[in-house]
Amino acid sequence: MTTYVVIGAGAIGGFYGAQLAKAGHDVHFLFRSDADVVRSQGLNVVSPNGDFTLSDVNAHSGWDTLPKADVVLVAVKNQANADIASHLPEVLKDDGAVLLIQNGVNGEPLIAEHLTEDQHVIGGLAFISSERTAPNEISHFAFGTLTVGAYGDDYQPVAPTPALEQLKADLAPTGVEVVPADNLLGARWQKLLWNIPFNALSVILRAQTDTLVNDPASQALVREVMAEVEAVAAAEGCPLPDGLIEAMIDGTKFMPAYSTSMKVDFDNGRRLEYESIVGEPLRRAEAAGVPMPATRVLYQQLQYLDNQLAGEAASK
Amino acid sequence: MTTYVVIGAGAIGGFYGAQLAKAGHDVHFLFRSDADVVRSQGLNVVSPNGDFTLSDVNAHSGWDTLPKADVVLVAVKNQANADIASHLPEVLKDDGAVLLIQNGVNGEPLIAEHLTEDQHVIGGLAFISSERTAPNEISHFAFGTLTVGAYGDDYQPVAPTPALEQLKADLAPTGVEVVPADNLLGARWQKLLWNIPFNALSVILRAQTDTLVNDPASQALVREVMAEVEAVAAAEGCPLPDGLIEAMIDGTKFMPAYSTSMKVDFDNGRRLEYESIVGEPLRRAEAAGVPMPATRVLYQQLQYLDNQLAGEAASK
Repeated sequence: MTTYVVIGAGAIGGFYGAQLAKAGHDVHFLFRSDADVVRSQGLNVVSPNGDFTLSDVNAHSGWDTLPKADVVLVAVKNQANADIASHLPEVLKDDGAVLLIQNGVNGEPLIAEHLTEDQHVIGGLAFISSERTAPNEISHFAFGTLTVGAYGDDYQPVAPTPALEQLKADLAPTGVEVVPADNLLGARWQKLLWNIPFNALSVILRAQTDTLVNDPASQALVREVMAEVEAVAAAEGCPLPDGLIEAMIDGTKFMPAYSTSMKVDFDNGRRLEYESIVGEPLRRAEAAGVPMPATRVLYQQLQYLDNQLAGEAASK
Repeated sequence: MTTYVVIGAGAIGGFYGAQLAKAGHDVHFLFRSDADVVRSQGLNVVSPNGDFTLSDVNAHSGWDTLPKADVVLVAVKNQANADIASHLPEVLKDDGAVLLIQNGVNGEPLIAEHLTEDQHVIGGLAFISSERTAPNEISHFAFGTLTVGAYGDDYQPVAPTPALEQLKADLAPTGVEVVPADNLLGARWQKLLWNIPFNALSVILRAQTDTLVNDPASQALVREVMAEVEAVAAAEGCPLPDGLIEAMIDGTKFMPAYSTSMKVDFDNGRRLEYESIVGEPLRRAEAAGVPMPATRVLYQQLQYLDNQLAGEAASK
């Protein structure tokens, strides 16, 4: 039995954490102010794979009651990483691993800085459509595959670590499909190839994925942005597989109409995760001397829209 | 007394035509199905410069009753130019002139093709905020300056023609400020410098000019698009005055919150005039080998939004 601590028990962390708890592992969730509700009413998971309720949840309201874990599953937005990194010594065993399930390409290095030599970071990429629909309810709509790869300094590809093997073994019986990535940075760029155009345009053009991929004008723009992402991935030593753009366009046509996570945030008046999804990749491209003119426009437009959200939040 | 025929008696044509009629000229408006209303109820102009009503309006419902004019004032969107050009022989005197009040850089050549050697085209650029608020009412909110320049083949700068002088003389007593342009193409590019970023972004980001110009992210994007327009104007032999971008940014900050004409169309579910304002300049830039990467993204986004509008219109 592995001990897990889940930081960010929302749509993503709540889902995977609940799967691990259901499989019998010792899972502790940092639920903050909702801890009481979850403790008294349990945690419900609504899913096409079968609904279930965890009645006896280790729901914590603060860092101080959490045990030391073999794996700390972090599924918050990038902005919170620095704060979380500073708390890791309290909750991570001396030989423990942090599983960072996030978008973007800048999370792992910051976390790694706060770890000792015997502790490790595993990068995770969730291909999932889920939402926290109540303080103690996670609604899972579709997908669920988790891509995981061990993090080496500066994203050097590294061999699977024992912690990664353990994680795979723990997840295997849960029904969650786990895809190991030898090259974590490549996997991150591969996800960005989809995330950058579809997250950005779904917010800017107020559209779901089906409209964006089927309209010839927006599809052309999606392809241009994807080509820019492909070029910077190659410049970072992660050439993407041939035909990936075509496959992602076709795959998106096949998917049901889907609101990206950034659009869900936007539609709910929440600040946009545009820095990690668009800003950081853009800065890496600039550092590598790769132009991303179309992506840059989307970045500025998101920045504008996020500034407006900040203003509205401030005036509330 | 000059005879005018006004084609497109809306916010722009209706306003300038009414000014000329009030000044005592023989002005005939093509009002189509609204001709009866205007004939029976008159044409009202509501304006901060003073409201007035023209009670005896030459309102025509079709081309066949229009007289031959010294000046045919055309103030419709570019898409209608080909149709209008085919009717010009019916309404333009042998030595008459067409005053084309439009956005973009592609209107005059098409009109000129349909004229004889003794007929001329005058390009007009209206800096005006006005709207047709009822079948027989034009509401004028602000500004009103009309820049006019004689059109020479392929936008060669030409000396002011007699028709241009006549137009200036006729407008002088109306209170409309007339600015002569020696270089019509330069004037058109100068207006595009403002129109491209502000029209496009006001629609894409659902914003008025004040928000766009005051937010740092959108202002930076406006400046980038302006720099692209400046480069293509220079490539077309129309270098814009030094400091124009700064002046336009400052001027827009000074202006009250303002919905661009494209935004007014968008908010009313009307198709977007994006081809003449953004598409045609972009194609001229491509022909001149000048890259406009940011403008191109805005073009694709507008195309997407216009496609959606077309779909909504079709499904009504």
